[in-house]
Amino acid sequence: MKIVDDKKVNIEKADKMILDTVKRGANFVCLPEIFNCPYGNEYFPKYAEKEGEQTFIFLSETAKKHKIYLIGGSIPELDNNKIYNTSYVFNPKGELIGKHRKVHLFDIEVENKIRFMESDVLSAGNNLTVIDTEYGKIGVAICFDIRFVEWFRLMTLNGARLIFLPAAFNMITGPVHWELSFRARAVDNQVFMVGCAPARESNFSYVSYGNSVIVNPWGETVARLDEKESTIVREIDLDMVEKIREQIPILKNRRTDLYEINKK
Amino acid sequence: MKIVDDKKVNIEKADKMILDTVKRGANFVCLPEIFNCPYGNEYFPKYAEKEGEQTFIFLSETAKKHKIYLIGGSIPELDNNKIYNTSYVFNPKGELIGKHRKVHLFDIEVENKIRFMESDVLSAGNNLTVIDTEYGKIGVAICFDIRFVEWFRLMTLNGARLIFLPAAFNMITGPVHWELSFRARAVDNQVFMVGCAPARESNFSYVSYGNSVIVNPWGETVARLDEKESTIVREIDLDMVEKIREQIPILKNRRTDLYEINKK
Repeated sequence: MKIVDDKKVNIEKADKMILDTVKRGANFVCLPEIFNCPYGNEYFPKYAEKEGEQTFIFLSETAKKHKIYLIGGSIPELDNNKIYNTSYVFNPKGELIGKHRKVHLFDIEVENKIRFMESDVLSAGNNLTVIDTEYGKIGVAICFDIRFVEWFRLMTLNGARLIFLPAAFNMITGPVHWELSFRARAVDNQVFMVGCAPARESNFSYVSYGNSVIVNPWGETVARLDEKESTIVREIDLDMVEKIREQIPILKNRRTDLYEINKK
Repeated sequence: MKIVDDKKVNIEKADKMILDTVKRGANFVCLPEIFNCPYGNEYFPKYAEKEGEQTFIFLSETAKKHKIYLIGGSIPELDNNKIYNTSYVFNPKGELIGKHRKVHLFDIEVENKIRFMESDVLSAGNNLTVIDTEYGKIGVAICFDIRFVEWFRLMTLNGARLIFLPAAFNMITGPVHWELSFRARAVDNQVFMVGCAPARESNFSYVSYGNSVIVNPWGETVARLDEKESTIVREIDLDMVEKIREQIPILKNRRTDLYEINKK
């Protein structure tokens, strides 16, 4: 979805686009990273809200109204004078069943091309987010988290077979790293990967690459948008996860006698 | 290089192709996986040799003659009645400076398409291979090892900035996973990745995908062959590793307060 500098308008847009996917049969809906606010350190403090406030209520009521699982993209969350980049996840009863605070903050400085220091304004979360649903366990992480192989291995070892990643790559990293990252994490862990990005808006200080994407556990891109505002609706056959893991037993053949990733 | 069912002919071919790269200025030369023998469980016992024998001597003498670092692809190595898939690495004096035994054996079974169980005949190595050279530390791993993110993170954390992977993907995995895997490990760890594969030979039971490749730390493929016999010679600027790591501080921003990969 295309984000504007007006929270109410962004929420109304999300409402319409969710309805569109529900009409086409969606049971799980994922919104983009920072969907109620332009992505930028100058906007986060102004848009931040506490758990249970305006955007949270909208997400909960919308999940309940349409009886869907709703991965609420992410929004700037205010807690104890700190701001987090937070994804709230609701079940079809509108109950909060999980919450991911971006764990790896996005700091980048490519000379003469792009500089963005999320850590100047945001605080990092500390929790691995794997959530039970009636379809099995899903993982949720946000954008820069995808670059850390340890984190995705841990979600997988904790049972995630389908991982949602609200994200907003940019015009420097996007063309080379966006689809590659989803395909890489999918093949490494033999899971489905879903990435949902804001549409491109060249007038903002941070320009989203867009290109929302779904990748299967064989590493094939099964659907991909371009930079414009749109939605994808696809059926996901989770049995494919087990099939691929039997064909190439990566997880089973990890040499855990030689190494292990330990969660602290 | 195209492999035939004749060890002497394979060694002579390697000799010629190494000479060709040396004439074009190569300081490091990497041969393909199982370069002195057709790739197949039926061939490994017949071709296997102990450390210090025929192929080993050829590699050592060739490194010394041309004053090059030689990553000797891999060969079936016999040791204590076990066979390993082993890469010997020599310095420009012809001295053995490292040895990698494939740690993750290749087992695959895709219904009606391909079945290969390396573990039926081969034994697995247990050592992480990071080697000092006058240009800095290099990593060496073999083929299926590339699918294990833990192993490549460990090589990187142990100082490898350039990783050589003699490998032979096949016609099922190659088209989807070959280049993706090299680009993924390059971007994850912000290292150079070099993959060297046998040329395709459709008459063998296992058909190599070929497509030897070099990827830089930004994840861009800087050179790639097709399925035919040929060589790549490229200059690698290792300073790019530090530059990319400053731009996007992945290794520095790993949340080692939350997780760590431990070598046992």
